[in-house]
Amino acid sequence: MLPFEVTILGSSSAIPTATRNPSAQVVSIRERFFLVDCGEGTQIQIRRHRIKLQKINHIFISHLHGDHYLGLVGLLGSLHLLGRTKAMHVYAPEGLKEIIDIQHHYSQTFLRYPLEIHTIAGNNMQLLWEDDKVEVHAFPLQHRIPTYGFLFKEKPWQRKVIVEKIQEYNIPTPYIPQIKNGSDFVKTDGSIIPNEMLTYPPPPPRSYAYCSDTRFYPEVCQWIKGVNLLYHEATFEEQHKVRAKETSHSTGRDAGEIAKLASAGKLLLGHFSIRYDSTKNVLAEAREVFENCEAVEEGKKYEVC
Amino acid sequence: MLPFEVTILGSSSAIPTATRNPSAQVVSIRERFFLVDCGEGTQIQIRRHRIKLQKINHIFISHLHGDHYLGLVGLLGSLHLLGRTKAMHVYAPEGLKEIIDIQHHYSQTFLRYPLEIHTIAGNNMQLLWEDDKVEVHAFPLQHRIPTYGFLFKEKPWQRKVIVEKIQEYNIPTPYIPQIKNGSDFVKTDGSIIPNEMLTYPPPPPRSYAYCSDTRFYPEVCQWIKGVNLLYHEATFEEQHKVRAKETSHSTGRDAGEIAKLASAGKLLLGHFSIRYDSTKNVLAEAREVFENCEAVEEGKKYEVC
Repeated sequence: MLPFEVTILGSSSAIPTATRNPSAQVVSIRERFFLVDCGEGTQIQIRRHRIKLQKINHIFISHLHGDHYLGLVGLLGSLHLLGRTKAMHVYAPEGLKEIIDIQHHYSQTFLRYPLEIHTIAGNNMQLLWEDDKVEVHAFPLQHRIPTYGFLFKEKPWQRKVIVEKIQEYNIPTPYIPQIKNGSDFVKTDGSIIPNEMLTYPPPPPRSYAYCSDTRFYPEVCQWIKGVNLLYHEATFEEQHKVRAKETSHSTGRDAGEIAKLASAGKLLLGHFSIRYDSTKNVLAEAREVFENCEAVEEGKKYEVC
Repeated sequence: MLPFEVTILGSSSAIPTATRNPSAQVVSIRERFFLVDCGEGTQIQIRRHRIKLQKINHIFISHLHGDHYLGLVGLLGSLHLLGRTKAMHVYAPEGLKEIIDIQHHYSQTFLRYPLEIHTIAGNNMQLLWEDDKVEVHAFPLQHRIPTYGFLFKEKPWQRKVIVEKIQEYNIPTPYIPQIKNGSDFVKTDGSIIPNEMLTYPPPPPRSYAYCSDTRFYPEVCQWIKGVNLLYHEATFEEQHKVRAKETSHSTGRDAGEIAKLASAGKLLLGHFSIRYDSTKNVLAEAREVFENCEAVEEGKKYEVC
């Protein structure tokens, strides 16, 4: 099965450190590459971790706080200088087009490739992009400015034919696609071979949800129920719960609660505040609620399975 | 003598690499700290090289190509989050205020400190800032959009009194400041002790010029004549001289010519194109014209002397 992976490029909250960069990650699903948030320095992280920049055709920006998008103008400029001609699609809340246009105006930058900026709005789940194998949705989070999470999921796989059975019943090739889609086979004598005798069930479609930044917001579970992997911000430790509320951020424990309510398979924590020397406490607090949990490391790949 | 130093934070041209960052440097003169250009990732470089961010009160942006200013909004935001209350002065060609304002509008950022943006314009040398010890000037360069270089120089030092002579002639303390300024001393009997007998000459004022980005532009020498240290962009090798002209950049040899024409003490090369694996050729080509020359290394301090 082609991999479905998340590579973390940045995991700090607003202020980067010498070892943690602002938010950015690459989601790769069956050889489609998506950039999710693009904090300052993302293009350098992409180079450092040897990600193929030109394979990315879609960028999703959760919100317009600088630590989630300030690397975008530089990255778009580098793609231009590197000779890109293929369209780039960027999805973000209202304002990003204006922010990019004014900078391109003063720098007299005229990109060689089409830049399509799609505005995310509304209070419900919405499909942003799909092809025959993958779909990407946005759903609202609750932060200080309009902010969206993203759900990446595979479309259901086709059933897998049992080759010996196809031969045994002499099923002609033109019928195979229907059988892969779940149809029974009707023989010339009118008798029926049920699909279950001809195929194996497909693997369940895999899914990944990205939730950053947000206050504790259990309503989000309606959109991310059952995800295999959940990335959730965990800016604060419980000792700073009040500060988390004031700034519309989550604690590690909040993230654990969301993973539990959403019946996620696994939880990744990120967006760590600079005030803590390590992620030990925030991770321990999340694990009290939801055991299968990790604090992300930059450069590391996490498999969605 | 208090140091006058340049710390290189970024030395790549438009596209950063895993080892070279976009343009940024800190000039420190007798405990005043100036940031010159602020490419993407500058705040991370400042942390990495342990520069005291809050000591910087003046930022000079040469022009509005992204590799010279894209780190600014993030840096200003971090200063705010770190509790700054002191004013920050930013000097840049027209457009920067608009670029910052639109981003602060969408991120709903209200800085806790005054941000004063000063627009650089015109076709001649101009004083941007001074105090009793130091002055900073801008002068035009020749690039694709309005671009300025910066000249940092000490004001002339006072003469240094010869303590034994002051005692020998019983010169009262209130006269000392005048003597340091070069006055002779008139004794009560009307006779004159010439200043040269009472003081040592001061050290010559030190100066540093920053020239990035520009095509070969010998007219610049009128403003930077005799600088102790000159930083000059050297984007290209001679083999790409045509490309240098097309893009209004310089070669290493061009930089050497400017250093020679300006009678600079020493030349630093920077703003290297990503197309070369090393700075060996560009440095060799500059040295053919001007021997006392280095290709900058990031994190390294260069003394102005």
